[in-house]
Amino acid sequence: MARRSTPDAADRGEKIHAFASELYPICRSIAGPGLRQTLDLIGQQIPLERIENPSGQSAHDWTVPGEWEIRDAWIRGPSGEIVVDYNRCNLHVLNYSAPIRRRLPLGELKQHVFTLPDQPDLIPYRTSYYQERWGFCMRHADLERLEPGDYEVCIDAHHCDGAMSYGEYLIPGRSTREFMLSAHICHPSLANDNCSGIAVLVELAKLLATCDLRYSYRFLFAPGTIGALAWLSCHGDVVQRIEHGLVVSCLGDSGGPTYKRSRRGDATIDRAMEHVLSHIGGTATCLDFTPDGYDERQYCSPGYDLPFGSFQRSAPGTFPEYHTSADDLDFIRPEHLAASHDMILQAINIIEADYHPVNLSPMGEPQLGRRGLYGNIGGTAQATEIDAIRWVLNLSDGRHSLLDMAERSGFRFDEIANAARKLREAGLLSQRQDER
Amino acid sequence: MARRSTPDAADRGEKIHAFASELYPICRSIAGPGLRQTLDLIGQQIPLERIENPSGQSAHDWTVPGEWEIRDAWIRGPSGEIVVDYNRCNLHVLNYSAPIRRRLPLGELKQHVFTLPDQPDLIPYRTSYYQERWGFCMRHADLERLEPGDYEVCIDAHHCDGAMSYGEYLIPGRSTREFMLSAHICHPSLANDNCSGIAVLVELAKLLATCDLRYSYRFLFAPGTIGALAWLSCHGDVVQRIEHGLVVSCLGDSGGPTYKRSRRGDATIDRAMEHVLSHIGGTATCLDFTPDGYDERQYCSPGYDLPFGSFQRSAPGTFPEYHTSADDLDFIRPEHLAASHDMILQAINIIEADYHPVNLSPMGEPQLGRRGLYGNIGGTAQATEIDAIRWVLNLSDGRHSLLDMAERSGFRFDEIANAARKLREAGLLSQRQDER
Amino acid sequence: MARRSTPDAADRGEKIHAFASELYPICRSIAGPGLRQTLDLIGQQIPLERIENPSGQSAHDWTVPGEWEIRDAWIRGPSGEIVVDYNRCNLHVLNYSAPIRRRLPLGELKQHVFTLPDQPDLIPYRTSYYQERWGFCMRHADLERLEPGDYEVCIDAHHCDGAMSYGEYLIPGRSTREFMLSAHICHPSLANDNCSGIAVLVELAKLLATCDLRYSYRFLFAPGTIGALAWLSCHGDVVQRIEHGLVVSCLGDSGGPTYKRSRRGDATIDRAMEHVLSHIGGTATCLDFTPDGYDERQYCSPGYDLPFGSFQRSAPGTFPEYHTSADDLDFIRPEHLAASHDMILQAINIIEADYHPVNLSPMGEPQLGRRGLYGNIGGTAQATEIDAIRWVLNLSDGRHSLLDMAERSGFRFDEIANAARKLREAGLLSQRQDER
Repeated sequence: MARRSTPDAADRGEKIHAFASELYPICRSIAGPGLRQTLDLIGQQIPLERIENPSGQSAHDWTVPGEWEIRDAWIRGPSGEIVVDYNRCNLHVLNYSAPIRRRLPLGELKQHVFTLPDQPDLIPYRTSYYQERWGFCMRHADLERLEPGDYEVCIDAHHCDGAMSYGEYLIPGRSTREFMLSAHICHPSLANDNCSGIAVLVELAKLLATCDLRYSYRFLFAPGTIGALAWLSCHGDVVQRIEHGLVVSCLGDSGGPTYKRSRRGDATIDRAMEHVLSHIGGTATCLDFTPDGYDERQYCSPGYDLPFGSFQRSAPGTFPEYHTSADDLDFIRPEHLAASHDMILQAINIIEADYHPVNLSPMGEPQLGRRGLYGNIGGTAQATEIDAIRWVLNLSDGRHSLLDMAERSGFRFDEIANAARKLREAGLLSQRQDER
Repeated sequence: MARRSTPDAADRGEKIHAFASELYPICRSIAGPGLRQTLDLIGQQIPLERIENPSGQSAHDWTVPGEWEIRDAWIRGPSGEIVVDYNRCNLHVLNYSAPIRRRLPLGELKQHVFTLPDQPDLIPYRTSYYQERWGFCMRHADLERLEPGDYEVCIDAHHCDGAMSYGEYLIPGRSTREFMLSAHICHPSLANDNCSGIAVLVELAKLLATCDLRYSYRFLFAPGTIGALAWLSCHGDVVQRIEHGLVVSCLGDSGGPTYKRSRRGDATIDRAMEHVLSHIGGTATCLDFTPDGYDERQYCSPGYDLPFGSFQRSAPGTFPEYHTSADDLDFIRPEHLAASHDMILQAINIIEADYHPVNLSPMGEPQLGRRGLYGNIGGTAQATEIDAIRWVLNLSDGRHSLLDMAERSGFRFDEIANAARKLREAGLLSQRQDER
Repeated sequence: MARRSTPDAADRGEKIHAFASELYPICRSIAGPGLRQTLDLIGQQIPLERIENPSGQSAHDWTVPGEWEIRDAWIRGPSGEIVVDYNRCNLHVLNYSAPIRRRLPLGELKQHVFTLPDQPDLIPYRTSYYQERWGFCMRHADLERLEPGDYEVCIDAHHCDGAMSYGEYLIPGRSTREFMLSAHICHPSLANDNCSGIAVLVELAKLLATCDLRYSYRFLFAPGTIGALAWLSCHGDVVQRIEHGLVVSCLGDSGGPTYKRSRRGDATIDRAMEHVLSHIGGTATCLDFTPDGYDERQYCSPGYDLPFGSFQRSAPGTFPEYHTSADDLDFIRPEHLAASHDMILQAINIIEADYHPVNLSPMGEPQLGRRGLYGNIGGTAQATEIDAIRWVLNLSDGRHSLLDMAERSGFRFDEIANAARKLREAGLLSQRQDER
């Protein structure tokens, strides 16, 4: 992959954070104006194809839901004051809630209110997509301060037939074989989950669009679960061409990074991400596949079993800010967003650059010295670069890829790739016939 | 396996201990009246088929020995007092000893006496089956107190042609494929080794007889080594049908539990017992096969290589009471006997219930919510049951059994089986064609 | 392998050290009189076939270099005193240096002087085979004491066409399949690297020549890299017959022992050496293959991929004396040389003695007691020998070799081999048909 320009990491982090900040205020759900507004913003950054899936259309075992539009929501207390106001935080309304307008006593109201007793100052994020119900989410501390009496509740929302939107962007490479990246876009004001993932993918797409690519890259921005299912159910042809896939979310916090392997467990994306994370060290963690999490659940279902891994900073559900009002724009930092972007890019670089070199002088070692690849004072300790060159020569039997070599030798992929490049320049290495 | 009745564990422990206590006083050996008396008692509990193998009959490389009958044995000291009395403990006589009646000085007597100098207050258990010799076993402390002088020794025993007995009980299941359980019955008054194993199997057989079973269950009660060899040498047809096997002994002490894998190492019984023990935790241990121990040595010999594991509490030979008079009825406890019974039963349950489910909605996840299998408030942490359901759905590709799923997911087998049951009830899962 | 005579280990260590001491003073290089003098000394010990490879001849990607003859070398200081004298230590001259005779100021001289600033009292060993250059090596402390002024340098050496020598010795066995052992012989006065390796192989060859051998044993004494390449390039036929190979060096220091596996990683030599080292314990280490080190780089190049491991005490490059004047005759000790010899011999014994026994009584255990292979008092703890016998019986299904059995059981190979011998004598074991 030839890269033509690279803004530096600090710039990139700021740009990603700025776009996440644009996305943050919108009250998204799985279908409706919030989703379209989100795709509008993405479409201002990259050329996005928009698909509208009509309500009621089937998506494998599921049915595309109707749209949800919310205009306002509030709770007014016995003495007339507003005690919960959707306009201050869109998490206050149960996402996809049915409309309501009535008076009711506190005891009855409480049956429609979700709080976090263990995190009394945070508003939880809750949804009710497939069961009609109305509700509010609020700080437990605020709930406890409510005095007995009659409350007036208003959720000025409605459901209607329409369409569920998603957007995709295909960057064609030299091959029609695809690398697909996917982020869910259905959560309202939660910065890490998943304004961060959307913004990182947008920045990555802009970069890849400037590159000469081996694979074609498909970016999918769709509501969680139903979006992936709708996409899968009408892209049977594309599915055959997907060789690598990655679901991203929660890319801006200070934890992790965490990579969860595909169901296969040894897909190239698994090995590439594991290689990247192993050389980062620290708290980087690779986890085996589990059938929970995000849309990898759909891509890795047994009927598809696609090679999709899942990438986050903190593993979802493990950080206290998860699905609460504390997942705000301060919780995601430019440096973490930039680092996440870079790790994905490193994995892409590996997958783009990997091949099975063939040693053209395989009987013994070739003489590196007369090719300028070897220091000419013998007896001194071997330099690192020579060691990488020797690994490449030794394993270039056509059965080992550069990534195999990096894994076996302990060298970083780019060190191995660099050694291979020098050996090709020296005429000592070629490509395997089927990879030319 | 549908179970019709389950006495509770405390009851069961007491019942097993009570039957072990009935077995304990009998002076058993590898052939003779003690063995028949033992089989009589077992036969009062379960319908036992008795086989008498004539002395001199060959059993593969071995020959069935003659019977041994012992009536009395004692040593009388120089001053006329009885210093060793078989009637107080049948371990005092070397098992299968030749008869003797004579006077001899202490020095000569000592050549026929076995003691444990490191455990001076315990009587050892010793045998001499295949070399004619006479002898006594006694406490080392008692031996050291013996005064010089002439001693009168009497072992009123005799060997004669007859038959070696064993008993078996076959509980037919829906298939003629067999699960065989085997306990040795040749040891005299040693409670753990092996009144415990006999009594646990008897209780288990009584329970299985009330169940609707997939496999047929064969219980073998036979003298160690020669009994298993005699059985094997004339059951070539049955051997072909054995799919799972377990040798049990020492099931009543407080140690372990310990499971020793079959020679194959990855037989279903190995995986089932390992699964059970892994969820018990604590000091539960799985060991690789070694060609020592009990009758697994015969079942796992290279000409058979049957899938027999071996199950104990403390591993044999590792506890100080092993093969001594301290292995008495106080050494085995009802709660350990009941727990051992339960672990075997759990493994049987796994083997009975295991199958390869097929997901009928494999393209993405099916919608669990409309089938009542999923809480309908989104955003909350996933409940454990949902996770088990997701694992089953994800791995139901016809290549994974429920046990595979339990191993991969970390869930207990019954949690996985329960999730599979619910999915079948919801019409989301079926059986693989070859398993219907 | 039947051995006819065994000098004891202390004697052997002294003999090996004595021969290493004979080799030590010679100023060897990759071609020239030093190399021939070394082969002369080896030829006095064992019948050595000498091969002269003409300068300019190609050896795969390489060209055989010209000879190098050195007569004298020194540096004379401003006041006329000799400050560096080749006659005191042949490491003082850059190995394979071009001749020089001139006067030059200290500053210019320093550009031709190699030292070890971190080990100021040691003379480094440096070479320049493939780039024409002149130079000296000296103690850094001495360099720092040199006063400004003009120095006279003399390297009375010359390069000329001729031949590069190596020597080999083939000890024929019952089969033409070969076990090849190789030591580099190009280093000047460095005792561990590699007078030790040469001397150990010579002693081993003398011993093997007295034995009845299954494999044929080939000993190669050749200059590093170019020697192995020249040998390989004209022994394509022999290469086909090599089943086991070992490169040795640095066999006399107190570190390690260290075995580096072949590129294959699971060759028989790998398993045999690993078995030997695992039973030595302590600091013995087995390392995965890396494409650095000695001539295993050539034997394990991808076009050959021969099963050659590499054996040392301290791993090369890891000890401070490596490639310095401290690698002298005091650094190598008779006891370590003898131990290294013994470990190689143990591995050879394993490879010579290994086979796949077949149990002639495989249905259950054979009765060991009547064959005198089993103590006849039952109930006692099993003796170690019985356990080894049981392992051999249990695994003698024709698919397990003695080495497989030793690995699986944890017994030493000789314990397993001994048990197998007893079982064969008892008529219970035979050889697999293809191994008779």
